[in-house]
Amino acid sequence: MTQVPLEGFPDRVRIVDVGPRDGLQAWPEPVPTDVKIEMINGLIAAGVPQLEVTSFVAPRAVPNMADAAEVMAAIDRSRGVELTALVPNARGAARAIQSGVDAMVVFLSASQSHNQANVNCSREVSLAAAAEIAKMGQDAGVPVYGAIATAFGCPFEGDVPVEDIVLVAKAYADSGITKITLGDTTGMATPRLVQERCRRLASDVPDADVALHFHNTRGVGLACAYAGLQEGITRFEASVAGIGGCPFAPGATGNICSEDLVYMLEESGIHTGIDLDALIAVAQRTEAALGQKLPGQVMKAGPRLRKYGRDEVRSSSGSRA
Amino acid sequence: MTQVPLEGFPDRVRIVDVGPRDGLQAWPEPVPTDVKIEMINGLIAAGVPQLEVTSFVAPRAVPNMADAAEVMAAIDRSRGVELTALVPNARGAARAIQSGVDAMVVFLSASQSHNQANVNCSREVSLAAAAEIAKMGQDAGVPVYGAIATAFGCPFEGDVPVEDIVLVAKAYADSGITKITLGDTTGMATPRLVQERCRRLASDVPDADVALHFHNTRGVGLACAYAGLQEGITRFEASVAGIGGCPFAPGATGNICSEDLVYMLEESGIHTGIDLDALIAVAQRTEAALGQKLPGQVMKAGPRLRKYGRDEVRSSSGSRA
Repeated sequence: MTQVPLEGFPDRVRIVDVGPRDGLQAWPEPVPTDVKIEMINGLIAAGVPQLEVTSFVAPRAVPNMADAAEVMAAIDRSRGVELTALVPNARGAARAIQSGVDAMVVFLSASQSHNQANVNCSREVSLAAAAEIAKMGQDAGVPVYGAIATAFGCPFEGDVPVEDIVLVAKAYADSGITKITLGDTTGMATPRLVQERCRRLASDVPDADVALHFHNTRGVGLACAYAGLQEGITRFEASVAGIGGCPFAPGATGNICSEDLVYMLEESGIHTGIDLDALIAVAQRTEAALGQKLPGQVMKAGPRLRKYGRDEVRSSSGSRA
Repeated sequence: MTQVPLEGFPDRVRIVDVGPRDGLQAWPEPVPTDVKIEMINGLIAAGVPQLEVTSFVAPRAVPNMADAAEVMAAIDRSRGVELTALVPNARGAARAIQSGVDAMVVFLSASQSHNQANVNCSREVSLAAAAEIAKMGQDAGVPVYGAIATAFGCPFEGDVPVEDIVLVAKAYADSGITKITLGDTTGMATPRLVQERCRRLASDVPDADVALHFHNTRGVGLACAYAGLQEGITRFEASVAGIGGCPFAPGATGNICSEDLVYMLEESGIHTGIDLDALIAVAQRTEAALGQKLPGQVMKAGPRLRKYGRDEVRSSSGSRA
């Protein structure tokens, strides 16, 4: 079947795999460093152009990210992949720069109560820290991107006004941070909110280059990505195998799944530069290495045109008589 | 938040819950009749306007549908719900009419090899049977709808040309069957195919009133529904809790989940007339009754504005230090 892009859609999209960071940071068991490195190098070999590989946070707070520098040092960078890391403060930024990241990601929550719960300070204090890190990045020649958590809703406050997203995006832009990500921290995004927020940012903060980051908590993650494509968004964060959340906490779910997203995009004639079969293989190896069933669907069902023998397919209507 | 429908979307959609039929027909263990009846009456009480409640097939072929007449007799019809049943042949149609269904659903596969595997005859023989049943329905005053299986791809043949869908839809229309459903039997639909097929039917078979039926095999079911909404489709088949497929066969998955779909629609200002909380409760009771974890997400995470205490939410960035 000829693959021309769907009407009104971009013809190329950049996938940012955040599995090594967002997927593993809250994993309930220690994840060996070599498992992370194999996963990251596998993603790079599959053609993923950008990865959020780790987080330079206090090891005591997030034990699974304690090996940030070690992970960075072992990554195969021969293919020109862009490696980013999350940095919460100036100390983390210094470590990140030293480890050789291609870009740093600062973050704060659009809702005050979530920011307070997450990083124990007000949104304004976080914005000041972001400005400081932006300056450090500028001095070191390392770009700084900005993430906005709870951009589609807050688990404590409920709805988050779009004005708060605009306010944070403008503050980021004032600090020179124009590549921003709207983070759907607890899976509250809906296509309607995606449409509304993308349009408001396009009109009110035209400098902002917006990426989207969804969790599939309520099953609508890929529909939200689809809505984002229609708003012209061309960078999406996802995690291989849909890893994330806590497998022992019912309802806590991971990011949208990278290979399911790549499948949807490529089948719609939207190019990602990623080899889907190779990505599926990384997802399967990750599942095996972590020893937990992961939510990705395409890794279980196979690509669309996988052929089956008659004995493998159950009667769909059950009408054989 | 005010709920005006998304631009270019319908403001009302009809959900057809097919869980009692498509969800349970291949369930690997016998499902007690009272479990089915409680599920069906629960769906009706939640406001689901139409249900595919059973299948009048040979009991030997599909043991879980052997109680079709008994189920029909026990349904609470005081709310004016529309009850349909699948009928494979004239004998099944006679039983369905006798049991008092509101409409019968005939079916065949767009791909010859799947039709052969499923009902052991050619597409043309199935079309002749559909015409015979349409005549029976006309005589009995019972409407007949037509389902087209493998409408987005065939597990044996791969791609299914859109011309085959048009051909079957025209043949249905010639027999007076104008309410048709495009069935994504093994989860091969993509937004692009949805767009293409809906547009072709609208132009080539303008009499056809098209509904969509997706399986979430590759994770893109709700994105396909979203694409369908944009083509003006207003009837969607789904199953409560996402039940279906075979829980013991990896990769075999159920229909898109009714409550996840209702959540997406209602949050987009598209009305379904369904009480989401009540529907979630049916999903949870069904999961408990079947004793298997089911794929629905909203039934686990709760509605969008469910509020959490601080201790219930893990730090999203893991940056507390």
